[in-house]
Amino acid sequence: KSAGMADAELEAPAAGRAGRAKAASRVLAAASTAVKNAVLERAAVALETPEVRTAVAAANAEDLARAAEMQLAPALVDRLVLDEKRMDAMVAGLRQVAALPDPVGALVQHRRLENGLEVARMRVPLGLIGIVYESRPNVTVDAAALCVKSGNAVVLRGGKEAFASNRALAAVFEDALRAEGLPAEAVSLVPTTDRRATKALIGLEGVLDLAIPRGGTGLIRFVTEHARVPVIQHYQGVCHVYVDGAADLDKALAIAVNAKTQRPGVCNAMETLLVDASVADAFLPKLAGAMEGVTLHADGRALPLLPGAGAAGEDAFGHEYLALELAVAVVDGLEGALAHVARHGSQHTEAIVTESYAKARRWVREVDASCVLVNASTRFNDGFQLGLGAEMGISTTKLHAYGPMGLEELCALKWVGFGEGHVRT
Amino acid sequence: KSAGMADAELEAPAAGRAGRAKAASRVLAAASTAVKNAVLERAAVALETPEVRTAVAAANAEDLARAAEMQLAPALVDRLVLDEKRMDAMVAGLRQVAALPDPVGALVQHRRLENGLEVARMRVPLGLIGIVYESRPNVTVDAAALCVKSGNAVVLRGGKEAFASNRALAAVFEDALRAEGLPAEAVSLVPTTDRRATKALIGLEGVLDLAIPRGGTGLIRFVTEHARVPVIQHYQGVCHVYVDGAADLDKALAIAVNAKTQRPGVCNAMETLLVDASVADAFLPKLAGAMEGVTLHADGRALPLLPGAGAAGEDAFGHEYLALELAVAVVDGLEGALAHVARHGSQHTEAIVTESYAKARRWVREVDASCVLVNASTRFNDGFQLGLGAEMGISTTKLHAYGPMGLEELCALKWVGFGEGHVRT
Repeated sequence: KSAGMADAELEAPAAGRAGRAKAASRVLAAASTAVKNAVLERAAVALETPEVRTAVAAANAEDLARAAEMQLAPALVDRLVLDEKRMDAMVAGLRQVAALPDPVGALVQHRRLENGLEVARMRVPLGLIGIVYESRPNVTVDAAALCVKSGNAVVLRGGKEAFASNRALAAVFEDALRAEGLPAEAVSLVPTTDRRATKALIGLEGVLDLAIPRGGTGLIRFVTEHARVPVIQHYQGVCHVYVDGAADLDKALAIAVNAKTQRPGVCNAMETLLVDASVADAFLPKLAGAMEGVTLHADGRALPLLPGAGAAGEDAFGHEYLALELAVAVVDGLEGALAHVARHGSQHTEAIVTESYAKARRWVREVDASCVLVNASTRFNDGFQLGLGAEMGISTTKLHAYGPMGLEELCALKWVGFGEGHVRT
Repeated sequence: KSAGMADAELEAPAAGRAGRAKAASRVLAAASTAVKNAVLERAAVALETPEVRTAVAAANAEDLARAAEMQLAPALVDRLVLDEKRMDAMVAGLRQVAALPDPVGALVQHRRLENGLEVARMRVPLGLIGIVYESRPNVTVDAAALCVKSGNAVVLRGGKEAFASNRALAAVFEDALRAEGLPAEAVSLVPTTDRRATKALIGLEGVLDLAIPRGGTGLIRFVTEHARVPVIQHYQGVCHVYVDGAADLDKALAIAVNAKTQRPGVCNAMETLLVDASVADAFLPKLAGAMEGVTLHADGRALPLLPGAGAAGEDAFGHEYLALELAVAVVDGLEGALAHVARHGSQHTEAIVTESYAKARRWVREVDASCVLVNASTRFNDGFQLGLGAEMGISTTKLHAYGPMGLEELCALKWVGFGEGHVRT
């Protein structure tokens, strides 16, 4: 912490850095697909060389040593670690983004008006994007790759726990940009994690085009409160699966197990299971057997039907566990489930299991969430799964991008019109 | 002004009203197209009856009397007036919105993934929209109609000059909603124009889904600074027409005259004309003849070629006149024009006149504005002209809606997925 620094000492450099990044964004916006892909391939190749791996590992060791000193929780330490396997994954991710189609310059919704004026919307980069995130250092590489490919410049403000790792990874991008004749400032890491610098960054109306906070509720609230630029929030996922009275219980069991256990630490994992009272007797005992190793927090009606479960505490519902823990409640039909989700959901991912046409249709229409599913695991709310390719995260903001933010969601659509001397009459 | 009121006295009612409007938004979101159209038709019929016209005229007279007392500028007084012709226009507008297709519930981008999961994006209402605007009372009717048709509830905070008129017009909507069995709170007028109440409204994260400020720069800055909800700004239009060296000068003249004089008081009217030095001698003397009644502010290079023009002052460029005034500058080719627009434009509407394929392509790609035109008047950046039907205004925010905001732009897209027991492997 730089508690001794005056606000002005933090704000002026932030504005200067963002100003240079904004200038770089104009160059990126005009860069060809080939050059942008070459930057990603250079970064991938660099991250495969032993020298760079050693440098990144050394930086990561620095972060891990500090984490040990600060007695960081084991789950958080695990997110910090950059081992060979995770570096391989970053390399694969870079090549995956390079292989995606370039969104920039595409004309969509083209039409010829009655008067002969041809109009369309052109996909263009947003400009300069600020990403404010917490501990995972791989976000640095993923976010930089997506921004470069979509023709945007990016200012990265990572968490203090991963500061050295992020610096080493950002340096790889800076080198790759320079080698392709692009300004290194197109990928800029904020050189401090002081919140006053973050506040200065997200206050830069007219410079920063979008702020994306990813992380805990505190971080997102801070950004939302202080931003004077558009914000797309990536809030937590309190995802529900509702097992309807008309469900195929075998499908329901498979979906529940997959949604909870396939990867419990991510935002699209199920956190609460709702069961219609009419099938609770038949379903819950099976669930108890299938959810081995999962701690179950059951409400008063579910508890007698779930051997081994504990009683749900006051905060059991609406809670994002990100672990092998699950809240379970018995509800009175679709109405009960809709009311529970409206109250406790986080507008992320909500699934129903039912064979009823009418109930499936009501669920799809009435649930307000970035992804609403019928007879499918919540784990499908994911850019790769939904066919977008890589993603920046899952937006819970309704505007512009509700759900996974891929390359197209990192672009704006401007109107273009081609006339032959057209005037209005 | 209610200077004696404590902040808390203003904030609590704002939160209560918005909370009721939010509840109403859930009802509106589920309302059928027929019912929503019936509300608009009822409002139209009401605004045709002599009783309602008399009530609205009386309220408007109240506003006009106060305007005279406050010695409001004639242009502002003119915007306030609700005569028979303007009331007829509101009625026609309501029926036009009713005739547009309902955007809610449409599935777009439908695809079947390799694993058989069918995914699509469903257009859904945003929820509760707050509109903060200035003097024109017709905005009350236009905005309410567009919000109701798109299944959104709306909180309207109009200008203090039009307060009585707005109250009378909002009452028409409340009656129409009630008559169709919908909650009257779906169209709520804030009963004070105190800025603290506005601040409270736009701070309601989780209640208000979007704030749209329309009006002067001061109002938009105030909303941007204090909002904790997404904001789509409708900033001013400093629109340019660039007459290129390769222009057809007859087309250029017709476009320039249309862009400036067809309706000078609106945001998509031209405010600055740029002329390539290579055609300035040929074009500017013609322009002077064609722009009768327009006050011309010419830069040093244009002045000798424009009989009757005055010398451009320091603030002549980048200025939104909204009147029969025009700034004129001679620039050095496309590069000069691009630089001028990048510096002085407001990301609204920018047109080039050229017969050069290469220059047209560069203009379309490189100019950052909500609408970029080739050989067409800036007046085409308009919802009706671009085929959207009625609009809420022209957004200069890049996210979500860049350019005219029609019914589709008042909706979000949520993901929906239809499976048969799909799980991730």
